[in-house]
Amino acid sequence: MGQIRVVISAVSPTIDGGRYPVKRALDEPLRVTAIAVVDGHDRVTCRIQHTPPGPAAPRTVAMSPTGRADEHRGTLTFDVIGRHGYRVEAFVDRYETWRRDAAKRAAAEKLTDTDRLEGAELIGEAAENADEHDAEIGRLLRARADALVEGAPIDRVLDDELSRHMARFHPARFVASSAPYEVVVEPVSARFTSWYELFPRSFGDFGDVAERLDYVASMGFDTLYLPPIHPIGRTARKGKNNSPTAEPGDVGSPWGIGAAEGGHDAFHPDLGTERDFAKLVSAARDKGIAIALDLAFQCSPDHPYVKAHPDWFQHRADGSIRCAENPPKVYQDVYPLDFETDDWESLWNELLRVVRVWVERGVTVFRVDNPHTKPFAFWEWLIAKVKADHPEVLFLAEAFARPNVMFLLSKLGFSQSYNYFPWKLSKWDIREHYSEITRGEPIEYFRASSWPNTPDILTEFLQYGGRPAFVSRLIAAATLSASYGIYGPAFELCEARAVRPGSEEYLDSEKYQTRSWDLDAAESLRDLVARINRIRRENPALQRDRGLVFHETSSDAIVCYSKRSMDGDNVILTALNCDPHHKHSARLSLNLEALGVEPETSFQVHELLGDARFLWQGASAFVELDPHESPGHVYRLRRKLRTEENFEYFL
Amino acid sequence: MGQIRVVISAVSPTIDGGRYPVKRALDEPLRVTAIAVVDGHDRVTCRIQHTPPGPAAPRTVAMSPTGRADEHRGTLTFDVIGRHGYRVEAFVDRYETWRRDAAKRAAAEKLTDTDRLEGAELIGEAAENADEHDAEIGRLLRARADALVEGAPIDRVLDDELSRHMARFHPARFVASSAPYEVVVEPVSARFTSWYELFPRSFGDFGDVAERLDYVASMGFDTLYLPPIHPIGRTARKGKNNSPTAEPGDVGSPWGIGAAEGGHDAFHPDLGTERDFAKLVSAARDKGIAIALDLAFQCSPDHPYVKAHPDWFQHRADGSIRCAENPPKVYQDVYPLDFETDDWESLWNELLRVVRVWVERGVTVFRVDNPHTKPFAFWEWLIAKVKADHPEVLFLAEAFARPNVMFLLSKLGFSQSYNYFPWKLSKWDIREHYSEITRGEPIEYFRASSWPNTPDILTEFLQYGGRPAFVSRLIAAATLSASYGIYGPAFELCEARAVRPGSEEYLDSEKYQTRSWDLDAAESLRDLVARINRIRRENPALQRDRGLVFHETSSDAIVCYSKRSMDGDNVILTALNCDPHHKHSARLSLNLEALGVEPETSFQVHELLGDARFLWQGASAFVELDPHESPGHVYRLRRKLRTEENFEYFL
Repeated sequence: MGQIRVVISAVSPTIDGGRYPVKRALDEPLRVTAIAVVDGHDRVTCRIQHTPPGPAAPRTVAMSPTGRADEHRGTLTFDVIGRHGYRVEAFVDRYETWRRDAAKRAAAEKLTDTDRLEGAELIGEAAENADEHDAEIGRLLRARADALVEGAPIDRVLDDELSRHMARFHPARFVASSAPYEVVVEPVSARFTSWYELFPRSFGDFGDVAERLDYVASMGFDTLYLPPIHPIGRTARKGKNNSPTAEPGDVGSPWGIGAAEGGHDAFHPDLGTERDFAKLVSAARDKGIAIALDLAFQCSPDHPYVKAHPDWFQHRADGSIRCAENPPKVYQDVYPLDFETDDWESLWNELLRVVRVWVERGVTVFRVDNPHTKPFAFWEWLIAKVKADHPEVLFLAEAFARPNVMFLLSKLGFSQSYNYFPWKLSKWDIREHYSEITRGEPIEYFRASSWPNTPDILTEFLQYGGRPAFVSRLIAAATLSASYGIYGPAFELCEARAVRPGSEEYLDSEKYQTRSWDLDAAESLRDLVARINRIRRENPALQRDRGLVFHETSSDAIVCYSKRSMDGDNVILTALNCDPHHKHSARLSLNLEALGVEPETSFQVHELLGDARFLWQGASAFVELDPHESPGHVYRLRRKLRTEENFEYFL
Repeated sequence: MGQIRVVISAVSPTIDGGRYPVKRALDEPLRVTAIAVVDGHDRVTCRIQHTPPGPAAPRTVAMSPTGRADEHRGTLTFDVIGRHGYRVEAFVDRYETWRRDAAKRAAAEKLTDTDRLEGAELIGEAAENADEHDAEIGRLLRARADALVEGAPIDRVLDDELSRHMARFHPARFVASSAPYEVVVEPVSARFTSWYELFPRSFGDFGDVAERLDYVASMGFDTLYLPPIHPIGRTARKGKNNSPTAEPGDVGSPWGIGAAEGGHDAFHPDLGTERDFAKLVSAARDKGIAIALDLAFQCSPDHPYVKAHPDWFQHRADGSIRCAENPPKVYQDVYPLDFETDDWESLWNELLRVVRVWVERGVTVFRVDNPHTKPFAFWEWLIAKVKADHPEVLFLAEAFARPNVMFLLSKLGFSQSYNYFPWKLSKWDIREHYSEITRGEPIEYFRASSWPNTPDILTEFLQYGGRPAFVSRLIAAATLSASYGIYGPAFELCEARAVRPGSEEYLDSEKYQTRSWDLDAAESLRDLVARINRIRRENPALQRDRGLVFHETSSDAIVCYSKRSMDGDNVILTALNCDPHHKHSARLSLNLEALGVEPETSFQVHELLGDARFLWQGASAFVELDPHESPGHVYRLRRKLRTEENFEYFL
């Protein structure tokens, strides 16, 4: 311990100093940097010890100096999802220190026999070690040691090949180690998802939903999210438009979970049976669609838990069970679970059991309702437990809460999170919010799922902006964020009627009643949605949140940003008119370095929505955006083409 | 554990996430902030658990919301030096949550008897707890609970007095705790020191040094640092001007430690005995001067360790002991200790013993020679060990090394550190370096000791800049840095001759020979040094590194900065001409907020070196600095005086 001389610090990236794991999708490398200092002038070598989950053997990954003082870098790649561990190690590299000093001495003609002997001893140690693994290298090393002792010219002996073998076989001693860190590696869909939400009961039962899968697939969505499909309570059931009293025949809110028929692991009788559900899951999978369910851990007064586990609820001084409240409002149809109960372990285990039941039924994606009203420690535990057996399972946090809470939920393990997209409408708001979440610590663990609307959120922008507002928000969500979603058919049919002025609630909301939708309506955005999802599938730049850069524009109404693929080859630039009412034009001042374009060259851009091509020159470009034609342009850059002759008209 | 709902994060300040303690001087408070979030909407209360060192009882310090989302703040103050521990705690404040909701319900006329009963129960719990400590408060609480149940108006019952008592007596449950953190509290001298270095042998023995104490005290220094005072080796001793061979009579380098007469715990026979040294320490203390010694953990070939502990040194392949090296150079007069020895524990313990011997002899300040060539772990251990028994002991790191190394040594426990001041000569270099070390994490643990010269460093600026260069550097060091030092009498006598062009070594350096100095020379800066040290003593703004702000100037040659005392009352503004050859003038653009001056007012400034007074108006001021008169102006601001009538001429 006292002989360890290297001190490792500033291991990066880390979240809260390593308290939480960073995240990667399976195809995303993790570039680790660290500072390693040693007393004196000895050479330090760093490496990463990488422990994949499961039976795979630990690996040693080389690090190399970055050129910044004392900084070293190495890159982990992954071939299995799950929770990977890693540590940075560092040690005084005796051979490389000796080699550097020997070269200086030789240059000054001061290399002594003793110096040569000491080098040969180090090489001999490596040779002994190599013998077990590779006898040929062992012989090569011994030959070098002999040549060194016999006075061979130093630059002939100490070449890069020798350094490579020494790095591999010379035993490191007094190795310093950083704290252990973790990275949660998830399926690629964790960072690239196109969500579609619908209320099954508006279409009928699970079988009717299965018949709508082609519709969903034709628009290019890969995840179909269903609000709760469980039995709905009758006591204090809400009526249409959130009326405090239900009329006969009112279907109630799917989030009023639990009735005589069962609770969180049961099916609403009107939707179908376990077998019907299995068919839906399987039919969806065949079309490349994952079925996502809602986890809403709260109970109607009729939920079986209320009788079976009264101690899981808070009891008031008068003996009644406490309802959900937002003082002075009281929600009599919802009993929150009391996570401060002395019986919390049973409660946690039961909720874990519920999730596992659905995983067994083929559900791998969960949208979690109001996670910020249940304890953070519970989510960290639950998600880790589920993912330990099923690392493919993803959780989306409905974290419409303060930034600290939203970020914390993602640190704890949620793969994706709703963000403030619905209310980020201006150039400046978009720029500020997306800059915050795509840089620094957040990009290491936070993955926004940007939704223009949800059953709870019909913004005034959509209420009053008409069809251009829907198109604008669709383009923004789909190009800003690798994961996005819409609540349909309300979205593609441009449903804009609120229950009353000043409210973001839908009129005749599907939360409280069924609706019938004309999916083939002429004004449907269905084709545009399909086109945009195709653009997303064809352009890796849009499939990740990293690589987002904002560009200056001369208009306050026009926001401009680009994204770039991991390999840098695919670049998409979007210019968006944030004003749904008026035409605006702007001069763009492009950050050419971010686009990978050489200064003072021409480059082709292909506008993918309108299928038009332009040759741009240098950092300045002009756009005009009429919201009634298209509020946004989405350009793919073709950087290798410099002249009009090279236009690839058919790409 | 599962019932704990609050999550604490971002405790600040911390160093490397709490790996190293922050530092404070005894009179400096520590303001701690933390983020605490809870699920749902309950009110969170935070507090700090403060554990002073030694027998003092732990204390609970209240925290309050800062107004920034989820952030809470509390302030620790100290009445004892040593290593203090603290943790942030947070919990759901049941009473304050209930009170907030009850107020909302009452406002909506929806407060029920059950609500009142629940509040009364909480107050009753506090009353029970209060009884043991303060029966009167217990009675008061019970009366409030009764009034509540009996239907008294809510705002009459739930007042701030009740909140205060509830905060004190209502038992918190499910309390979350941060990791434990530490703060090393040191004497005020740790952040405010004026160092003077001299070679005792140039004056004679310890008795002769004692006779120079008045000289040192007259210049206002509080710390007198002596290079090593131990026996000096004879083998391979260096001659004058670092000649590789010593002539008979050459005294050798004090850093060539160890001879037949003894090693690091012994006295050089020419300097005196333990008793003589004790007299010097005591005489210095009487004049308010601490004697600082040099810790140079390296050995001459004649050091007793070489025979007694050959395994504390590295042995070469030919059996010889490895000398200090900077390949291809070899320093035959110095044997470095081998901290990779298997016997490292004995070595560490022996070096600790050496330090303790000197502490027993009354030395409380150590200047550590080349700490960056001994292992970091060793320093962390040694300093903690020494300070555990003697928290008053201070260590100054001679950390002329890369920034990462310099900063790390201070994190490990060094109270002060030499910095890059000698080479920070331009406006921009000064601004960049001092901004870096007085903000962010460094200000929490790094305290620069700025030295214009040392026995190893005679910069070209001093070599060629004449007397104005010395004055300029003196003003800069003494006003930028709460701790600074000079190597004298070379400095105040403006000794500027280098051993050869391009070298920073002194000609006829005292490292290798004795010198005699004419302390009463007419050209001595002695009076100016005394004046500047008096200004430092009289102005708390100059006694800390915090509060440094740079102001814009219109000249590249003139740097301008201000410092402000902890209470904000004392403000010193310095304008310095960095060019020792030419007169420059500049318009200053003052940051009035940093100066505590209202915009668009007049304020008096008192130039303390020339004793001149000016009335300045607003943010713009003009200075002209002739290096041959004074390269710098040091202004004290008098902000409360707005008119010429109020001039306090005699202050």
